[in-house]
Amino acid sequence: MPENRPFVSLTTDFGAAYSGICVGVVYSIAPGANVLVLSDEVTPYAIKEGALLLRQALPYLPVGVHVGIVDPGVGTARQPVAVRTGRGDVLIGPDNGLLVPAAESLGGVAAAHRLENPAYRLPGVSTSFHGRDVFAPAAGHLAAGAGLAELGAATDLLPLELPAAVIRNGVLTVTVLYADQFGSLILSAGRPDIEAALGPIAHGTRLQISWTGVSVKVPFEETFGRVATGDPLVWLDSSGQVGLAVNQGSAARRFGLSAGDTLTLTIA
Amino acid sequence: MPENRPFVSLTTDFGAAYSGICVGVVYSIAPGANVLVLSDEVTPYAIKEGALLLRQALPYLPVGVHVGIVDPGVGTARQPVAVRTGRGDVLIGPDNGLLVPAAESLGGVAAAHRLENPAYRLPGVSTSFHGRDVFAPAAGHLAAGAGLAELGAATDLLPLELPAAVIRNGVLTVTVLYADQFGSLILSAGRPDIEAALGPIAHGTRLQISWTGVSVKVPFEETFGRVATGDPLVWLDSSGQVGLAVNQGSAARRFGLSAGDTLTLTIA
Amino acid sequence: MPENRPFVSLTTDFGAAYSGICVGVVYSIAPGANVLVLSDEVTPYAIKEGALLLRQALPYLPVGVHVGIVDPGVGTARQPVAVRTGRGDVLIGPDNGLLVPAAESLGGVAAAHRLENPAYRLPGVSTSFHGRDVFAPAAGHLAAGAGLAELGAATDLLPLELPAAVIRNGVLTVTVLYADQFGSLILSAGRPDIEAALGPIAHGTRLQISWTGVSVKVPFEETFGRVATGDPLVWLDSSGQVGLAVNQGSAARRFGLSAGDTLTLTIA
Repeated sequence: MPENRPFVSLTTDFGAAYSGICVGVVYSIAPGANVLVLSDEVTPYAIKEGALLLRQALPYLPVGVHVGIVDPGVGTARQPVAVRTGRGDVLIGPDNGLLVPAAESLGGVAAAHRLENPAYRLPGVSTSFHGRDVFAPAAGHLAAGAGLAELGAATDLLPLELPAAVIRNGVLTVTVLYADQFGSLILSAGRPDIEAALGPIAHGTRLQISWTGVSVKVPFEETFGRVATGDPLVWLDSSGQVGLAVNQGSAARRFGLSAGDTLTLTIA
Repeated sequence: MPENRPFVSLTTDFGAAYSGICVGVVYSIAPGANVLVLSDEVTPYAIKEGALLLRQALPYLPVGVHVGIVDPGVGTARQPVAVRTGRGDVLIGPDNGLLVPAAESLGGVAAAHRLENPAYRLPGVSTSFHGRDVFAPAAGHLAAGAGLAELGAATDLLPLELPAAVIRNGVLTVTVLYADQFGSLILSAGRPDIEAALGPIAHGTRLQISWTGVSVKVPFEETFGRVATGDPLVWLDSSGQVGLAVNQGSAARRFGLSAGDTLTLTIA
Repeated sequence: MPENRPFVSLTTDFGAAYSGICVGVVYSIAPGANVLVLSDEVTPYAIKEGALLLRQALPYLPVGVHVGIVDPGVGTARQPVAVRTGRGDVLIGPDNGLLVPAAESLGGVAAAHRLENPAYRLPGVSTSFHGRDVFAPAAGHLAAGAGLAELGAATDLLPLELPAAVIRNGVLTVTVLYADQFGSLILSAGRPDIEAALGPIAHGTRLQISWTGVSVKVPFEETFGRVATGDPLVWLDSSGQVGLAVNQGSAARRFGLSAGDTLTLTIA
């Protein structure tokens, strides 16, 4: 199956319509491209959620041009950038940290350039829709063969501070990173963190999870089906993060938790 | 217009992001494929809703590889399967009944095989994201030319029990199958059921519809425009099912009904 | 990058599933087409919102066949139509005004024909899903090479009345056209209207905005970042309309306003 369509993906907090306009701009410039809207459903303005999605998703996509836009600073001095990764992708988006974890998951930052060249923007850039006027045109031109360095001057990327796990003897403190489509809560810890804090942990072990005034006992299980329908569990999600879920239900709704909330885990 | 891109569709309860990752996996394996996300909006865990959507939709799609994922049993003993239909499609998904009505609407099951071959899975299958690790890779490899029997052993499919109409003399008892995007309630009956219970029925006939403590009179009409804006009607939907709707409104919201509720219909 | 795939876009109030069925019908007829779902998230039955989206978006898409479906009159006497634009596109949808502003933004109406030819419909047209049975097949056949005049008789289009700005000396009265994905309220006025009513207006000028029993002071700014997070602003959106927004928040939620509400603006 010979295939040489350049691959472009788009991840935004725009919803369908504004994302669709961006895709239209890419096709207008690079009609032979294969464009995938990876997601148009990132929570509005949630840079960390977008960054974590890109980090988790892009390694599963073909090498290509990947646009990420969660951009509360649109129209301010923040820079639009393009980032070459070790794997050979180009990531495009605002220099607000959104692209950094994804770049690390794709072999690291090989080069970063500002999107300055007016030839690779639409004429008449608006103050509030750089997706259409700056990011999508850059993606289209790269897909159509433009070189990264033609876009603008080399630059350094601003970092992104993601919530980390706090490991103390017998206590793991974590932050809710985001709730997924099913209401499962993805936490700022992996198995190494949980074991560093709580010791080796077998499936079936009951954990005590506490937050402001609430404390629940939840088993650590390999898979949802190990608990009854409607029961909670702690498990390792498909990206290796510790998660708190409810089998066939929503942990976010059950426990009233969302991104940024802090939990402590101990052995029950 | 010569065209030989293999066609792949995807229907999930994942929302955009996780569905997008699955599409990325398909393109990574079969870059020449034409991939359509038929829906990423199936109600989470609602196997019957997903099954009815696939049955209704797939006959209108090109012959191809169609992935359906509504999979509350992911990570348990339920089998992932691929199903050859009489029309020539391959349906891919969990063996929980999801694919059965669609296979029947596409000429029946010609063959079914388990997805066992590790060469057609991603390395390191997770316990909670078989869409990415098992189903999408199988779809990609089939689109890229793999044979159905290479995937694993032949198997039989588990059935799906869909709610049926109960026909008594002068009384039709039905279940709400699902509410569509407009809030129209699709019921477990077709015109033959309604006529078997209530006799030949002309447009304009008023029906009495009753459920727990509530009873409303609603006309049977050919089309929404036959009733005033905001008024309810019973009609035959585009897949031939009896439906309860509100012209330019939401019957689900108006009547507080949802999937699984039971209604009785009589002549008013 | 040679490319001769005919481009088709689809904009509906259908949600994902019914839109996906329409895309499937297009691909079944025109397998070589490149089909983009511009949006499946138009507010149900909101003709004006759909019309404004099409007017704003289509100039950024490649020349092609663009299907728009917001069709509360489906199944009544309203006509399905195809409209050739000055730019060379064909717009397809119901003759309820939905397509008119977009046609004007694409060089005007060059020709309009009814979709009457049964050869370009699916056999057995339903009363409630003309997207699948009438509009998508017409788009597919046009993409596959059919001529506009083959579809049916030439016709005139019904107009669409959009809310306008009312300009009095020192007072601008506007209607909320729609709320975008972020909850920003797009108003029925452009910069010329605001200046005709209020005189030349500099960034930083404070406006008094009033509606039923409420009055707030909001600055007119070039960009969101000019006000603190959570503060409101009036700005010119990316399509040149006056908008009322909250930096990193939702003006629709903050002020309880939605499409159709009327506001007055004066200098504070």
